[in-house]
Amino acid sequence: MAVTVIAYHPAMGRWEPNARGRLARAAMTLYAEQGFEGTTTAQIAQLAGLTERTFFRNFADKREVLFYGVGVAQELLTRTIAEAPAPATPMDAVSAAIEAMCAAFQEHPERVRQRDAIISANAELQERNLTKHSELAAAMASALRDRGVPDPAASLTAETGIAVYRVAFARWIKEPGQPDLPVIFRNAMAELRGELSTAPI
Amino acid sequence: MAVTVIAYHPAMGRWEPNARGRLARAAMTLYAEQGFEGTTTAQIAQLAGLTERTFFRNFADKREVLFYGVGVAQELLTRTIAEAPAPATPMDAVSAAIEAMCAAFQEHPERVRQRDAIISANAELQERNLTKHSELAAAMASALRDRGVPDPAASLTAETGIAVYRVAFARWIKEPGQPDLPVIFRNAMAELRGELSTAPI
Repeated sequence: MAVTVIAYHPAMGRWEPNARGRLARAAMTLYAEQGFEGTTTAQIAQLAGLTERTFFRNFADKREVLFYGVGVAQELLTRTIAEAPAPATPMDAVSAAIEAMCAAFQEHPERVRQRDAIISANAELQERNLTKHSELAAAMASALRDRGVPDPAASLTAETGIAVYRVAFARWIKEPGQPDLPVIFRNAMAELRGELSTAPI
Repeated sequence: MAVTVIAYHPAMGRWEPNARGRLARAAMTLYAEQGFEGTTTAQIAQLAGLTERTFFRNFADKREVLFYGVGVAQELLTRTIAEAPAPATPMDAVSAAIEAMCAAFQEHPERVRQRDAIISANAELQERNLTKHSELAAAMASALRDRGVPDPAASLTAETGIAVYRVAFARWIKEPGQPDLPVIFRNAMAELRGELSTAPI
């Protein structure tokens, strides 16, 4: 029998399936409608049909709920690196991982843009976002080390991959429509490879 | 006649030469002795021989005072890029700029290590530090655009340069002594160039 460990706990008053997801969706709706500052955790819990106590059992604060999906992204990144075919270079593995993450984002472009608009409007959220990027880079470096890539190569390729992703994401936000995020990322990575070989100012 | 615009303002009760520098040094001393959380702005002002009002005229909060030197670093980075010789590639210019910053840090290794220990012990300071890195990357990208480097090349090389710097700095912190920070950075940049050309996992 499958047991949903996170969603059910004996101490909880009632069964709350996917409380985290419901809270995250409710928070996104309220942040978009009335702004991040103007929204309380009580309002988020109410819209999700849950108690404020349940909110704090699932998220440390109002900021963390916006980064609900980062755990999923991290899992995708590390799994892609773990499963990269043997002849791949470390940067090939990192590129494939980030491209997979970009493809996942591209499936819900409006949601990703809405979330970015909320983050961009608040300095604290921007700082938290940078921390999450840093954590994703660290997770990829760790996945590379698990495959036998030594440091500093593991850290260098992971941090550089995230740096290229940041540039690609900013470009995608600025220019809605075509091309898709995975294509922008792939082109940016190709451009960086070119920049590191030739091209005087 | 030279006028020191920042240090003197008619609204100030008395002349306070280099108030910012004095406050920054006092803050570093207290943060190292009694921790960041345990230090108040009143204590910092007192140790610097200034009023708390003067503290807040110079810094927005307790965090910002730790990043006093970032403005100087940014000026060094952008000036080095502006003065890079014509045949330099964008990444050569970025590398030279960051190496100059590393050399400046290497002149006061104990101060830089002490500051890093304070930042590493506090999650909020780590987030602010990431923001400052992001600002340095944006300033370098802007300096490159001023030299006619188009985007995304300007952003890509600037963000990648900072990514490599972060890896090099972490290594320098972890391994006290030799080699010096500029050498670690130069080697890391050479290694990244290598990673982007060959080397299967």
